[in-house]
Order: sequence, then C-alpha cells, then structure tokens
Amino acid sequence: MNIISERLKALRKAMETANVDAWYISGTDPHAGEYLPARWKTRAFISGFTGSFGMVVVTKTEAGLWTDTRYFLQAENELTGTEIKLHKLRVPEAVSPEEWLAKQLESGAVVGIDPQTISVNGFRQLKNTLGKKSINLVETADFFENIWENRPPLSTDLVFDFPAVYCGYSRTEKHKQIAALLERNGADFHVISTLDELAWFFNLRGSDITYNPVFTGFGLVDKNEMHLFVDPGKLPEKLFSQLKTENVQVRDYDTFYPFLSKIKGKRIFIDPSSANYSIYSELYAENEMVEGTSLIAILKAIKNNTELDGFRQTMIYDGVALVEFLFWLKNSVGKMRLTEYSVGRKLKEFRSKQPNFKDESFTPIVGYKAHGAIVHLSVTEENALEIGPEGMLLFDSGGQYLTGTTDITRTVALGHVTEQQKKDFTIVLKGMIGLTLAEFPFGTKGCHLDILARKPMWENGMNYGHGTGHGIGHFLYAHEGPMAIRQEYNENRIEPGMVLSNEPAFYREGEYGIRTENMIVCVEKQVTPFCQFFGFETLSLCPIDTSLVIREMLTTLEINWLNEYHRKVNNQLKPQLDTDLHGFLDELTKEI
Amino acid sequence: MNIISERLKALRKAMETANVDAWYISGTDPHAGEYLPARWKTRAFISGFTGSFGMVVVTKTEAGLWTDTRYFLQAENELTGTEIKLHKLRVPEAVSPEEWLAKQLESGAVVGIDPQTISVNGFRQLKNTLGKKSINLVETADFFENIWENRPPLSTDLVFDFPAVYCGYSRTEKHKQIAALLERNGADFHVISTLDELAWFFNLRGSDITYNPVFTGFGLVDKNEMHLFVDPGKLPEKLFSQLKTENVQVRDYDTFYPFLSKIKGKRIFIDPSSANYSIYSELYAENEMVEGTSLIAILKAIKNNTELDGFRQTMIYDGVALVEFLFWLKNSVGKMRLTEYSVGRKLKEFRSKQPNFKDESFTPIVGYKAHGAIVHLSVTEENALEIGPEGMLLFDSGGQYLTGTTDITRTVALGHVTEQQKKDFTIVLKGMIGLTLAEFPFGTKGCHLDILARKPMWENGMNYGHGTGHGIGHFLYAHEGPMAIRQEYNENRIEPGMVLSNEPAFYREGEYGIRTENMIVCVEKQVTPFCQFFGFETLSLCPIDTSLVIREMLTTLEINWLNEYHRKVNNQLKPQLDTDLHGFLDELTKEI
Repeated sequence: MNIISERLKALRKAMETANVDAWYISGTDPHAGEYLPARWKTRAFISGFTGSFGMVVVTKTEAGLWTDTRYFLQAENELTGTEIKLHKLRVPEAVSPEEWLAKQLESGAVVGIDPQTISVNGFRQLKNTLGKKSINLVETADFFENIWENRPPLSTDLVFDFPAVYCGYSRTEKHKQIAALLERNGADFHVISTLDELAWFFNLRGSDITYNPVFTGFGLVDKNEMHLFVDPGKLPEKLFSQLKTENVQVRDYDTFYPFLSKIKGKRIFIDPSSANYSIYSELYAENEMVEGTSLIAILKAIKNNTELDGFRQTMIYDGVALVEFLFWLKNSVGKMRLTEYSVGRKLKEFRSKQPNFKDESFTPIVGYKAHGAIVHLSVTEENALEIGPEGMLLFDSGGQYLTGTTDITRTVALGHVTEQQKKDFTIVLKGMIGLTLAEFPFGTKGCHLDILARKPMWENGMNYGHGTGHGIGHFLYAHEGPMAIRQEYNENRIEPGMVLSNEPAFYREGEYGIRTENMIVCVEKQVTPFCQFFGFETLSLCPIDTSLVIREMLTTLEINWLNEYHRKVNNQLKPQLDTDLHGFLDELTKEI
Repeated sequence: MNIISERLKALRKAMETANVDAWYISGTDPHAGEYLPARWKTRAFISGFTGSFGMVVVTKTEAGLWTDTRYFLQAENELTGTEIKLHKLRVPEAVSPEEWLAKQLESGAVVGIDPQTISVNGFRQLKNTLGKKSINLVETADFFENIWENRPPLSTDLVFDFPAVYCGYSRTEKHKQIAALLERNGADFHVISTLDELAWFFNLRGSDITYNPVFTGFGLVDKNEMHLFVDPGKLPEKLFSQLKTENVQVRDYDTFYPFLSKIKGKRIFIDPSSANYSIYSELYAENEMVEGTSLIAILKAIKNNTELDGFRQTMIYDGVALVEFLFWLKNSVGKMRLTEYSVGRKLKEFRSKQPNFKDESFTPIVGYKAHGAIVHLSVTEENALEIGPEGMLLFDSGGQYLTGTTDITRTVALGHVTEQQKKDFTIVLKGMIGLTLAEFPFGTKGCHLDILARKPMWENGMNYGHGTGHGIGHFLYAHEGPMAIRQEYNENRIEPGMVLSNEPAFYREGEYGIRTENMIVCVEKQVTPFCQFFGFETLSLCPIDTSLVIREMLTTLEINWLNEYHRKVNNQLKPQLDTDLHGFLDELTKEI
C-alpha cells in the first residue's frame, strides 16, 4: 500500500467517525492565501499533487482531484499509482466537484468540510449546489490534525516593524481611517483574515510565506481597539512593547475563534469573498453581519503619496537591474550556455544588488520560443530550454523592495525574428498603449476598461485567455485585490492611487508567446461639468524592444507615447546606471 | 377633503383591516410592463402623479412618492394640495422608499405589498432591506380592488394571429425550441409572465397597451403542452379553433394563479427579474424553482432570418418616411408655424403612409434647442417650443410595422449652428461609429462594449447619463431585454441576431442636446484559431446631417464609414422615393 492509500484510509476512518459521506478539501488555508505555508499544503499531502491550484474530494469509495489546464500533465504524473482520479476544470463539459458530488451521492447524504479552509461565499455556493439535491453540507474538524503525522508547524520566524517612513501612515493613523469607515458603514468591528491586509493594517511584515513578506495571524478592529492575534513568540520584545503603547492588544493566534465566539450584539464587517466560514460561523448567530468588500482591502489598494513615491523610486532600482540584465543577456547569448532557469537566477542576481531589495516577488517566468506561450510556465534546472541567438524570450519577474513590489514583463528578440512575430508584438504593444492612454470618469470599473487592451487584437482575430491587470501591493503581494482589469465583472471601481499591472499578451501555442507588462497607477486627469476624469501614469521603467515594432502599424499617438516613454526611461535610469552602459541604454531607448 | 385624501383614507382603512403598518405601491403591473393599461395605473390613482416612473408608500400617518429627476417638476405640481411628499431619487443623498420605511417604522412593524406588482428579485431586495431592521414584509391582497370605484377593466380588444410569414417560426416550431431548452436546463415548465414574451411565443398580437402590440395574458409551457391564460372573449372564434388544433390549451386569465397552485413536484423555470412574486409564491413550496434569464426572452432577442429580412425591409419604409419628413421640414421651417408637438405629429403622418405600418412605437421625442438636452422630454401641444430656422433639432421616433419595430434618432441643423455644436456633434458621431465598428469575441457582454461609444467623449471630458444600447423587438416592444449595451453589468452576452440601438449622446443643459441613434444587429465576422468573432451591421437607413460634421476631427476609418453608410442609404432608399426627392437625397448623402 503506498503512502497516499494509507493517508486516504486514515481520512476515511476520520470521516466515518464524524459521520460524513464525503469530505471536501479546498486546498486553501484559513487566510485565503495564493501561496501556502507548509502546514496548509493539505492537497499535496492527501493526493501527492503539488500544483498551486486544485480541490480534492474523497467519498467512501472514490477520490478525485480537480485542477485546470495548467496542471493536467503534472497531475496525471503525480496521481499515477493512486486511486485518485483527475477531473479537468476549464474545459468544455467540465463537471465541478460539487456537481460531481451531487451525482455520486444519494439525497440525504452528508458532505463535510473544514470551514476554516473555505470563504463564506465559497461555503454558500457549495451548500446551495448540494442543497438542490438535498445533500447536506456540514462543518467538520480539521481531520488533518489527526491523520498527518509530523504535520509542519506554523513558521516561528520573527515579525518586523514596517515604519511609516516606508508606508506613509502610522498604525494609529490607519486605525483612525478604519474607525471612520466602520462608522460610515454602520459597523462596530472589522475582521482581518488575509495576511496582506493584516500586515498592511498593523505596519508589520514577516517571512512566513515564500515571496510574500507577511506573517500568520488574524486581526480584529473596533473604533477603540486593535486586536492582533499572532504567536507571541514571533514578536521581538521591543516590537511587542511598542505595539502595546500604540493600543494594539496582542493575543495568541489560537485564541482568535474563541475570542470571536464571545462577541454578542455587535455589527461585524466581514468580506465574504475572503473571510473563512469559521469566522462567520462563530459570529453570525449572535451578531449582525455587515458584508462587503473589505474596507481594509480598499484602503490598502489606494496607495498614499509615501507609497507612490516609494514605487517611483523602486522603479529606478528595478529598471537599472533590468537594463544591466539586458546588457548581460545581449553579451552572453550565443557565447555561453544559457537556459531559462539560469536566466531566471540572473534576474534575481541583478535585482539583489539594488537598494532596499529583500526578495523576488514571485518565481521568474522565463519562456524561450514555444515556452513563451505557456502562461504559467514553471521550469526547473532540469527541463529548462537552452537559449540561443534567435527567436524571442519572454521574461516576467519582480522584486520585493522595502519601497514597493514590482512585477514586469518584457519580450525581447535574441536574434532573427519573423515578420509575423513583429506583427504580433506590435499588436500587443498597441493594446498596452491603448489601456495606458485611457481616460475615464469616476465609477469606471475594470471590466469597462479591459477592451482597450484587447481592441487591436480583436480587430485581428486574436485574443489572450487571461486578465489584463491585477492590483499590486506595496512591499506586499504581487497580486492583490479588490479591483482588477479583466472581462469578469468586479464591482470595485478603479480609483486614483490604485497600482495595477497592464499586461496584454498573445500566445501562439507551440511557437512563441508575447507579453508586455508595465505597472501603472490610476491618477486624476480633469474635472469637467460632466464628471471627474481619471487616467493612468506608467510606473515601470524598462525599455520595450523596438526591434520588434513595426512602426507603420502604430498611430502617431502610439508612436509619440512610445518615444516619450523611452525618453523618460532614459532620463530616469541613466543617472543610476554605470557609465559603461549609457550607450546601451541610449540604443535601447532611441526614437522610432 | 380632496379626492386624493379620500383615497388615502380608504387605503388606510384597508391597511388597518389587514394589519399592515405601511403599504408599498410599486407602480407596476403583474407583467412588469413599461407601459401600463388603465387598470394598473395605480400610482396615478392613489397620488395624482401621472409620470411613467415612481413608487408610492403609505403609512398610518405619512405618504410619499419617489421618482427621479425627469419628473421632479411634474410631481411637485401634481402633488400640490395632497399630503403626499415628494422624495427625490437619483440625486446625491437620495433615500430609497425601503430605507425611508426602515427609518419611519419601529422594528417589528409590518409592511404590505400586493405580490403581483413586484418581481421576485424586487420582493427579495425589499424584504432584505426591511429585514435588517426587523421589519416584516408580507403579501397582501390588491387593496385597489375595493377602494377604486369604477376601476377600469382590462381591455377586451381582440387578439390577432401573427403568422410565420412575418415572424419566421410557427407556434409548433417555437414550442419545440423551448422544449429543447427546458430539457437542457433540467426544467419541466417555463412560466411566461411578460406580455412581449407571451405575444412572441404564441405568435399573437393585440392592442391592449399603447405603442405595444401586445395583449394581457400569462403562459405556461411544458415539453408537451402550451397553456395560454387569456380572457377567451379576446380570441376570435377562428383563432381559438386554430390554437386548439396546434395543441394550445386556452384557459381563462383569472385561472392562472389557481392553476399554478396545483402544480407539485415539478422543476419550474422562472426569470426572477420579471416574474412577479405571486407566481413564485404559488409555486416554490411544492416545486423546485430553476431561476435564470427567461429562455424565451433570449430566443426572442435572437432574431431569425425572416425577422431580420423584415427589419431590413422595414428600414427602407422608415427611411423613406424620414427623408420625406426632412424634406418637408427643410421647406417648412421659417415659413410656417412649427412646434415640437406638430413636428412629432408630422413624423407619424409620414410613417403612416408606409406599407405594413400599424402605429408609432413610442411618443416621438422632439427637442428643439435647450429642449434637446432633456432626455425624457414629453411635450404637449401647449408647452411645445416653436421651431425656427436656426439651431439644432433632435428627434427620436419609431414605428410599429408588421415587419419590425423601429427606433431612430437624428439631430439636424435648422440654420446657423456654432462651432461648439459641430464639435460636440462630431464627437457623438465618433462614438456611434466606434461602437458600430466593434469586433469582439464570443462571450462579450454589453458592459464591455459600452466604452467604444464613450471613448471620444471621455477623451474630451464629456459624458452622457444613459445607456448606449437597448434591445428592440420585432413588431413588439421598442425596449426589450435581456441584453443591453451600458455600463451596468448584465450577464447576457451580445450574440448574432440580436437587434440593438446604438445611441450615444451629449447634452448641454439649457443649451442643446445631440443624439444620433441607429439600430444595429449583431452578426458573425470570422472564426480564427483563437475565437469566434462578432460585429455589427447597421439596419437604420437615414442620412446623418453632414453639415454638423467637422471632417478634420474624423479618422480616415470614420470618414470611410460615414461615406459608405450614405452610399448605402442612397442606394436603398432612392428606388422607393418619389423622383422629386432624389436630388434632396443625393444632397443629404453626398460624400464628405
């Protein structure tokens, strides 16, 4: 019997004891994180599948893993030799785990889930789908606690202070802002359940999660007090005292749910898209729940001037590292052995030399030729392609700097490229410029703007299968909400101060991929008798490969934008760049 | 005591008997109609307010009318001398009737509503808002039945057959289409509650509602049978027999709810945005409700080839009438007394001479100078402005033809106009052309496309406060769903065969208004390896006033579109136009 069989057997025993016919493993943690600490890699533990997205469902007789196109090959390999069947999502005729459960189980059956591991909205949707077949959804304990021997503990890494000199406002000032928003929303308490909101609100950072400078904890804020639930061992003595003087009540992480259960007769603000169902479960019966987009998420997304100045400074560091990288790349390709993997490491090396650099903000995606068309490419030292002096290289990378988080993609020619490649590159560039030049009134949402990046593509019968822009944190997550620029409806407005990516792309499967990504910030443009108008300022400072641009396909407006952008890149980077590279920078940023 | 006081007194007595503290009058009818039959003009009966939009709420001590900006003046006048207070909607700090009720009433209070007069979604939202303050919402009888002496009966006008030669498919064929959709959606029955869906599905038309060729009734369809609930006196003998041979069960209108109450253990498809709450109330306890956009509304919106050919033919009739009107207007203005009202009547006169014309599709909106800036202008013979040989005239009008419904707006110069007016006109035109030329993949929704009509406006700090496009029925409602092109999210995709308006506009309050509206139909463009692409074909055939166009502001693409459009208008209209008008048409459609 292999290890997965043993684990499934143990799980089924726990299910039997708890009287559930099926158990739903969402694959997430209590903080709705994109990246998980070892303790919460429950999907990998129970199934052996190590991809970053997937749900596992186990019944008395069946077990299945649901994941999407990115992971079909990997999942098939990793599930080999287990009883777990692969169910494909995001394909025509896909059957969701809940639909599958509804078919497998008799009406009256009981499905269990650890409510810590699913959002309030997720729980409701699951309950609703199962309920239509009279199947019950019940909250269970975390069965992994008993069946996972040597389950990794939570990180004990220290938390550190992230002072107002970087983030703009003190804890006391942020508390006042939230208190005012609570008042306006008629609520007494705001629950903080995601780690980036927690880090942002308390001006603290940590290193519990790879690429994300956050720490594990919960928060609860009312108009008078701030409660921080965290393993006290993670707080250095001095910081602990400091927090105390600032009216922060530090409580043990494990006391969070018991603390909630004692709150009665209050109005509690939660974001049902991120708060886990245990939180709701502890509160809803004795309190009035006020639901909406997290007020902290919105405040966090609207960067203040200190954060924006930090971002602008960061872009110079990041841009210098990228120009140094491009110079190295140009002088190395065809002359030494380069692979997608080694190039990724080199990106980190150049960034590491920059001031305030703490880490990468995600694993670099470096795709050469056909690999460029794999959106969520993940190469290892072993399977990385070797890079030579021809075709195109796509690299998507970023850094965590104390002064801001970066995320940028460029696609560059390494030698001969085809006219088709240039045409496709130019169309993607037109889309990126189209969104950059947007002017839009107060109230505009991401789904309204998305078409500006796609229009030139649609006019040529092309498209890309992902969103155009995501929010980006300040020394926090490289992907943050609540707003986004994509086709899917998202009720959150695009407002001044929000920092987003602008990354239209085009992929020819088996041939090549093109993506050009800048970070942009929403800014005020003008106030007229008809409305207040906003637009975007580009933050990223890195040349766009003009050797891939077909000038005749651009409008005068687009040409002017590109030339002005390159003038700005040149002006801002040159003073920080080694004089040996000035000629190279001039060449990269010359007028078209 | 005036008549309104007497009516309120009678209503309060009925409320007391029924033990409700407040009664909510939605102002709509059981069929969610935009235009109401006399019997359902309950808002006007109880308040004296005759506008087309508003809610009335009556408590034991207070009474209020809620309406929007269009009607503030009219409401103030009409409510004078009554105890009813005007509450303004769509203004900053507006308080909705339910919010007002939540403030006025103690918790535990009871609000009543006639569930026939509110959609399922509307009822839920009301219940939810009141529930937050522990105020109960209950279903009551239609109190107007007792307090409204001589309440007008429903129309007894005859229903007539609308054969497949006009509408493309026989009842039997439509029944098969719906049966297949019911199967696919796992439902046994489809409820038909709106009058346009009823008329469309049964290939019948009537004249119960001004401008809308529909009749009062309900429908219920399962895979085997079609039930039509209608006053049998409205069906001519021959039609009655015909329906019987086609498997249509004709039942009395009044037996609809009792019939529903006998259905048990079935899966019933309803559209909660249009089905009234009484329908839901009769069904939900004993059946499984399947909720979604009405399958009939979607089928109806996607016009078949017979309907589309009819529309194309109709546009020639309508275009000829409009060119005759423009010729008359040019030769009359400054030479005889013209008013907005008389010009509106003239529009009807020219359309009336066209083949298959049955009626206007709505009251023409004719706005001269500053009146053009009033979006929902409603002039009477008395308050209409006199029209002279200067400035701009906006006219928005349409006809009900057996071969299709039309809706078109043009803004024309009657003499001297300013450069600002030309600039604004050109910007609106750029927006209309921008949407016309859209190319977009399968899955695109109206909220994605709306920006194409607004972009030139936003770039000039301008905007308009209404949607860009609404669906248009085929010899049915001039406004139909389920899709729309506007900022607000609407989950329904824009698909080939859907007929919509394209009507960007710009209004300078107190000065002038500009709107250019064509009808467009979504068509297939191309299939590429990346997606299936759609676009629009313009249906309306009427010259756009080129004397208002600043050519230099248009791109080559826009100029080409305008010239091609005018060539098409010229080619299609000339053969049907009196030869005396050929020169005039040539002049209106000459190249810029």
